[in-house]
Amino acid sequence: MHFVIIGGDAAGMSAASRARRNAPDMRITVLEMTRDVSYSACSMPYVLADEEGDMDALIMRAPAVFREKQNIDLRLGHRVTSIDARAKRVLGEDAQGQAFEIAFDKLLIATGSTANMPLIPGHNLPQVFVLKSLDDGRRVAAFIGDNKVKKAAIIGAGYIGLEMCEALTERGIIVQLIRNAPTLLPWLAPELAGMVEKTLIQKGILINHGCTTERIETKGERLDICCREACFDADMALMAIGVRPNSFLAKEAGLALGASGAIAVNRCLQTSHPDIYAAGDCAESFHVVTGEKTWIPMALTANRAGWAVADHITGRPVRMEGVAGTGVFKIFDVEVARTGLTLKEALRAGFDAVEVVVKSYSRAKTVSGSKPVWVHMVGDKQSGRLLGVSMVGQDNEARRINAAAVALHGRMRVADFSTADLAYAPPFSPVWDPLLVAANQLLKTL
Amino acid sequence: MHFVIIGGDAAGMSAASRARRNAPDMRITVLEMTRDVSYSACSMPYVLADEEGDMDALIMRAPAVFREKQNIDLRLGHRVTSIDARAKRVLGEDAQGQAFEIAFDKLLIATGSTANMPLIPGHNLPQVFVLKSLDDGRRVAAFIGDNKVKKAAIIGAGYIGLEMCEALTERGIIVQLIRNAPTLLPWLAPELAGMVEKTLIQKGILINHGCTTERIETKGERLDICCREACFDADMALMAIGVRPNSFLAKEAGLALGASGAIAVNRCLQTSHPDIYAAGDCAESFHVVTGEKTWIPMALTANRAGWAVADHITGRPVRMEGVAGTGVFKIFDVEVARTGLTLKEALRAGFDAVEVVVKSYSRAKTVSGSKPVWVHMVGDKQSGRLLGVSMVGQDNEARRINAAAVALHGRMRVADFSTADLAYAPPFSPVWDPLLVAANQLLKTL
Repeated sequence: MHFVIIGGDAAGMSAASRARRNAPDMRITVLEMTRDVSYSACSMPYVLADEEGDMDALIMRAPAVFREKQNIDLRLGHRVTSIDARAKRVLGEDAQGQAFEIAFDKLLIATGSTANMPLIPGHNLPQVFVLKSLDDGRRVAAFIGDNKVKKAAIIGAGYIGLEMCEALTERGIIVQLIRNAPTLLPWLAPELAGMVEKTLIQKGILINHGCTTERIETKGERLDICCREACFDADMALMAIGVRPNSFLAKEAGLALGASGAIAVNRCLQTSHPDIYAAGDCAESFHVVTGEKTWIPMALTANRAGWAVADHITGRPVRMEGVAGTGVFKIFDVEVARTGLTLKEALRAGFDAVEVVVKSYSRAKTVSGSKPVWVHMVGDKQSGRLLGVSMVGQDNEARRINAAAVALHGRMRVADFSTADLAYAPPFSPVWDPLLVAANQLLKTL
Repeated sequence: MHFVIIGGDAAGMSAASRARRNAPDMRITVLEMTRDVSYSACSMPYVLADEEGDMDALIMRAPAVFREKQNIDLRLGHRVTSIDARAKRVLGEDAQGQAFEIAFDKLLIATGSTANMPLIPGHNLPQVFVLKSLDDGRRVAAFIGDNKVKKAAIIGAGYIGLEMCEALTERGIIVQLIRNAPTLLPWLAPELAGMVEKTLIQKGILINHGCTTERIETKGERLDICCREACFDADMALMAIGVRPNSFLAKEAGLALGASGAIAVNRCLQTSHPDIYAAGDCAESFHVVTGEKTWIPMALTANRAGWAVADHITGRPVRMEGVAGTGVFKIFDVEVARTGLTLKEALRAGFDAVEVVVKSYSRAKTVSGSKPVWVHMVGDKQSGRLLGVSMVGQDNEARRINAAAVALHGRMRVADFSTADLAYAPPFSPVWDPLLVAANQLLKTL
């Protein structure tokens, strides 16, 4: 059996390693177009925050380890240009321009996602960056190091954009945040988003809402980032307006894509061709709340899906229950966490959804260090089910969200969740955990 | 309807307040034998840690508020001495020694628990304390304040004993911890207990294991706390060897007690007499893992049970699903958390239980501040169910335990829990949360 994997990051290398453990004699080939495999992309802002930070420290396992210890034929600089699904082979070109053609018994497409870059005038200037691959990170680090950057523009305010606000501020760089939407984090309730925005402003981030960047111009060695209404000067610009799935290869091979544009897969991660799998950022997954397909590219999902593909091709039972859309990030001393559906998403999915927004506290009021915690909780009037939770706090709140995520996996009703025996001790929580306070409030509306 | 409540702390006052909300015209009488109601007993160590600490700041709501704002007939200094279940009345004595007799339609026994005090020679010396009621706290605070305490002996190493190790150390007092068991926290796996013990030793706590205190003697103004093998000198001694339920009144009234000695109740918190309820530390509850009755006195359980009693007597549906035995505490910079059953408890409950002990990390290795986290996880080979988790860490791990607690409420299998979409961001967790790492390991043994 020859197991070929396109893409050597989270999903791809997890699949390769697990397949090797499951099947010591399997022939495993990984084709990676860059020179990097298996790195922690999510950690790049934290490396960039540190003047001494080393991007290469994010490499979790070196190529040599995969090759020598795990007998995985890992080929770097190998770009697959097409998949012949019928003949079960992939075609491509290596770093030297040599064509290659490789036959497979089972194929995994783990091509990840690509940072969006609008093709506006100036998008290809050398001072304009995205932050997705490790090479992107190296380029940003080198530019900041070489050019005494004093001011940076960040276009977009998703996870990466906001994390980079903190990272660049840590480096003493003034940050101009340029957003096309009229509010920050529009998927959060206003009370929660307000707490984030307040912190950004307190930390000196310049925020311009409602500005759609139309062009980027050079102004000497500097840039002018221009919306219709105004231009903002900066030494560099970071485009952080989300990612899209790398599903082009799959589409060209005639494999089905989902409504999201990512590769459609079943609960065993098979594409529309049973010998071809897809996993990680390029593939869809199922949402545990809606039961429908969704596309929420996350590192844990990719790792887990990689394992599952390896299990399935080695004959183990696999059924992906799906994702809850759990996500968390911090900006300065504020933490934002979410799991499940927002009210808008819940209504769109057909639920009879209701919400509460509750302010609570991180610790008992009797001990020092207690901070406000905002909880937004969404439930279904018809079934009583818990549908989603988001939280904003400042006292290590992020991990609290996991209790709600598990409840979503368990398809719990709000009433059941409200009876959960959550931990209480004064330094960690009020007697009623903020999540329980919210659940008790939400119950009144169900 | 006259609703009479014996005991005015967590369960009693929660029931009184909720009954008032549910039934604006109900006659509600609370009989509290001390002068304090509704205070955060769990916070006493944190007040004692602070030289300026004010015990009275732990009173959550003053008696006048209950009386005036909620029209609750709250009588302090009223000790109930007997319950006539057949005639539906309680008898007792007030602070002036006047007898009283009060008829009830519904009665709640919320008499709490009492700190254990072995009747060894010297147990009643004025330098020997327990820490259970607010008056206990006031006595300890006054003694430390008035007597320039340089060294204290803590007898027992449960939650309170360990929290007091930290509190007294904060006050510059040398702490001698005297334990009868041969190891610290015997319900924890050795790796986890070892991390706690190491911290205590590093912080200068003197620990003597395997010493059963047999007598306490005065030595001038100081004490000698004596085991068979040795005596330990100290300026004061704190007995912290657990609590027992105050179920004597109920027993004398002919109400059934459980095997634990606490008052037996059904899932609506009714005792063996349908018009008499029991809630809080004096009552049993159901364990969500075993389905059996248990006695785990905790603040959240008491608050929740108080609400449930009020709901039941005002005609609302009530069914107590039970407790998971979730508990958490910190000692210096170490946090200990647990939920569900230990291996021993699981085997005793008849499960085909297996365990794993896994060392993991609190954050991604790529960011600073990551600390070791030990996870002990127990599962059932036959059903695959998750039975219990305990954790020890140093980086705000306590709240992680809630994810496992919710899984226990959802009666999840380890396999289901292992697929949970838990939050990942480098400052909060590795890609695989420590709980998921443990679940993946445990799966291999199931």
